[in-house]
Amino acid sequence: MVQLMPKINAGRLLSELRRFAQFGAYRTGVHRPTYSKEDMDSRHWLAQQYEAVGLQAHIDGVGNVFGMPPSERRSLLIGSHAESENHAGWLDGALGVMYGLEIARTFAETPDCAGLAVAPVAWADEEGHYVSMLGSRSFISDIDEAEIDQAVNVHHGLPLRDALNTAGLAGVPRSLLEPKRYVGYLEAHIEQGDSLEASGNRIGVVTSIVGIWQYSIAFCGIQNHAGTTRMAVRKDAGVAAATLAMAIAERFPKVAGPRSVWTTGHISLEPGAPSIIPGRAEMLFQFRDSEIPVLERLDTVLRQLVEETAIRSGCRVEIKRTETGKPWQMDPVFQAAIENAAARHAPGAYVRMPSAASHDAQVVARKLRAAMLFVPSIGGISHHWTENTDDADLVLGCQVLADAAETVLRGESR
Amino acid sequence: MVQLMPKINAGRLLSELRRFAQFGAYRTGVHRPTYSKEDMDSRHWLAQQYEAVGLQAHIDGVGNVFGMPPSERRSLLIGSHAESENHAGWLDGALGVMYGLEIARTFAETPDCAGLAVAPVAWADEEGHYVSMLGSRSFISDIDEAEIDQAVNVHHGLPLRDALNTAGLAGVPRSLLEPKRYVGYLEAHIEQGDSLEASGNRIGVVTSIVGIWQYSIAFCGIQNHAGTTRMAVRKDAGVAAATLAMAIAERFPKVAGPRSVWTTGHISLEPGAPSIIPGRAEMLFQFRDSEIPVLERLDTVLRQLVEETAIRSGCRVEIKRTETGKPWQMDPVFQAAIENAAARHAPGAYVRMPSAASHDAQVVARKLRAAMLFVPSIGGISHHWTENTDDADLVLGCQVLADAAETVLRGESR
Repeated sequence: MVQLMPKINAGRLLSELRRFAQFGAYRTGVHRPTYSKEDMDSRHWLAQQYEAVGLQAHIDGVGNVFGMPPSERRSLLIGSHAESENHAGWLDGALGVMYGLEIARTFAETPDCAGLAVAPVAWADEEGHYVSMLGSRSFISDIDEAEIDQAVNVHHGLPLRDALNTAGLAGVPRSLLEPKRYVGYLEAHIEQGDSLEASGNRIGVVTSIVGIWQYSIAFCGIQNHAGTTRMAVRKDAGVAAATLAMAIAERFPKVAGPRSVWTTGHISLEPGAPSIIPGRAEMLFQFRDSEIPVLERLDTVLRQLVEETAIRSGCRVEIKRTETGKPWQMDPVFQAAIENAAARHAPGAYVRMPSAASHDAQVVARKLRAAMLFVPSIGGISHHWTENTDDADLVLGCQVLADAAETVLRGESR
Repeated sequence: MVQLMPKINAGRLLSELRRFAQFGAYRTGVHRPTYSKEDMDSRHWLAQQYEAVGLQAHIDGVGNVFGMPPSERRSLLIGSHAESENHAGWLDGALGVMYGLEIARTFAETPDCAGLAVAPVAWADEEGHYVSMLGSRSFISDIDEAEIDQAVNVHHGLPLRDALNTAGLAGVPRSLLEPKRYVGYLEAHIEQGDSLEASGNRIGVVTSIVGIWQYSIAFCGIQNHAGTTRMAVRKDAGVAAATLAMAIAERFPKVAGPRSVWTTGHISLEPGAPSIIPGRAEMLFQFRDSEIPVLERLDTVLRQLVEETAIRSGCRVEIKRTETGKPWQMDPVFQAAIENAAARHAPGAYVRMPSAASHDAQVVARKLRAAMLFVPSIGGISHHWTENTDDADLVLGCQVLADAAETVLRGESR
C-alpha cells in the first residue's frame, strides 16, 4: 500500500517558529515565563491560529490552549508547552507546539488527510515557574484546587492565583481529559543533550522518559567563630556537604546504570559569612534513570553515603526525598509509527533512546497512549538563550511527526 | 616594693555589665548593630558615665566614645568595641568597654592611683556592619573620607553616610590619634574559643593576633540540563568547588602550623536550581595564623590545590586574595605586666596564647604599644546569644587588667 503522505510546508514552519519566538524575544532566545504578558499573548495568538485552521480553540483555566476538531471523531493531541524557562531558548516547548500547529494546517490542506482529526495543544507551565507540568497534570486531573491555592512562583513568590487572575484566567474552567475523545498524544521536543549530535543521528525515537528522584539534604553542625575554634573540635556543616558531594562523585559511577545522571544543583551554607563556621548546610540533589531498580539502588547508596558522612563529620543530617518520579514507557505502536517515518525520511540517521529530561508526555502517558520524538540540540545546549537546532532538522522532525500522526490516525480509523 | 594595688568593685562591675546588656537586649544576649538606636543610646550612656568619673567625654565622627583625663599627663587607653554582631552575645566587645569604665572608676576612687591617667574608649564597628574595625582604623588615620563615602551596611545595604547622619554624627569630626598623648592601649576580650576552658586556665595573655588571609574563589564550568547532559561531558562547577574543599581538608593539616585554622564560610552555585548543572561556583575561604611563613606556605598550597582542581574538573578558575592581614605582636612589656598581674590573682591558671580572632588592638598596635587579655568563653561559644563567661572570671579579668594598667602607668611615670 502506497500512502500519500502529508507534506508539511517547510518555509511556513520555519517562519512561524521565528514569529513565535518574537513573544518575549531575548537575545537569540526567549524570556517567556508562564502567565507573563508575553506568554499570554503567545497563547491568544495560538488560539487564533487554531481557529483559522477550522478548529474550536479555547484557553482553559490554567492556560492550556486546545484546538479541537469540530467532528465527533477521536482526535490525536499533538503539542508541547508554550512558556520558556527564564532567559532561555526559542525551541524548548515552542518546537512541539508549532509542530502541532503546522501538522493541523498540513492535514487541513491535504485532501487525503482531511478526515484525520488532529488536536494541537499548548500546555502551561511544564517548566514549573509555579508548578512543574501544571497544564498536563491539570488535564489528567492530577491536581486539585488546594494545590493551586498554595502554589507560588518559585522565582519571585507571587501566588499562582494572583498570576491566573492577572492573566484573565480566574473563574475559567480547567479542561479535563475525556479519554474516549482521544486516540493519544504525540510530542516533539529538542533533545537538550548532545547524544544525537555526537552519534550523527537526526531523529530520536523516545522509548521512555526517565524518573527523577530528588532529595533535600541538610547537615547540622555547630556554628562558631572561624578564628577561635580549633580545627579539632569543629563540626563544620559545609565540610560535611563537600564530603558527601565527593563521596557521591566517587561511588555513583560504580553503581549507576549506563545512562544514569546525578546532580547537586544547589548548596547553601548558613550563615554564609567568611568568618563563621557554617552551622548548617543544605543541598538539593537528584538522579535520573529510566529503570526503577537502578533508581532504587542509587537511593540505597545515597542513604549509605549520607549516613557515613554524618558519622565522619560529627554533624546531624536530615535527608528527605522530595520527588519520586516514575519512569514512563512510551507506547510501542506509536514508537513504531515514528520510527518508520524516520526510516523513510532520515534512513540510518535515527535512534531509539530514553529521554533524560521530563516532559508533558510522561504525564499524559498515564492516561493516554503517548510517544515522543527528539531533534538534535546544537552542542547539547538548552535552558540557555544560545539553544538552537539546524533548520534542516527542524523541518525533518516536523515531517516525521506528521507522517507518524497520519499512520497513528489511519491505524485508528481502520 | 609592695604596691597598693587598686581594687576593683566586683559587684558594680557585674551589675553595670548587665545594665549595658539592656541596650538591645535579645534573649540572654544582645542585638546592637553599629549606629542602631540601641548602639547610639549605649554610647551616649557611656559618655555620661565617663563624665561622671571626671573625664572629658566625647563621641567622635564615627561613633568612637572617649573619656579623656583632664590633665596633660600621657594616658593609657583601655577599651574595646561597644556594638555587637547581630543577635549575638552580651560580652563580645562590651566586656572590654566596661572594664575600661570600671578601671577608670576604681583609679578615681583610689587615692594612690589618682594621678594615673586612664582613658576609657569604646570603638565603633569592629564587627564590620559597615567597615570592619572602622573606629580604631579611623583613630590611627587608616581610613579616608572616600572609603567612608562608599561603605554600605553588609546586611541591608544602607550607606554608611546615611547611618552616620541618622545617628547624629554627620559633620562631627573624627578624633585622630596624637601618639604623644598616650602611653599605649590595653584591651580585654572574651576568648571566643575554648582553649582556656579546655586547659583549665582563667586568663589568657595575648602574645600576638593572627593574620587573616581571605580568598574569593570562583569556578566556571558549563551550565547545562541536569537530565540530558551525560556525566562524561559535564563541567560541573559545583563538583569542582566540593573537590577543592575536600582537597583543602586533606592537605592543609599536613602543612599548617599547630594553631592554624581554615574555613570555607560560603559556597554558592549558579543558577542554583535542582535540574541545572551549576555553571559557576563561588567560595569564600580564609585561613589564620600568627606566623607569616605559615601564612605564605598555606597560600602556596591553596593555589596548587586550586590549579589541580581546575585541571581535574575541566573548569576555569579565578582566585583572588581579598584580605592579607598581618599578624601583630603584642608589646612585650605590656604582656609582662598582664602576666605578672595574672600570676598574683590566678596563680597557675593563666597562659600565653595568640589570638585567633581579630581585635581593635591589632589596629591600634600599629601606632601605640598595645596588649590584650582574654577571659574564658563558656563552651567556646561566641557570636551567638548564648555566649557567656563565669562571673568569677569576669571579675578576675578586670582585676588583672586594672593591676596591669597600674604597672604600665607607674612604669611610665618612673
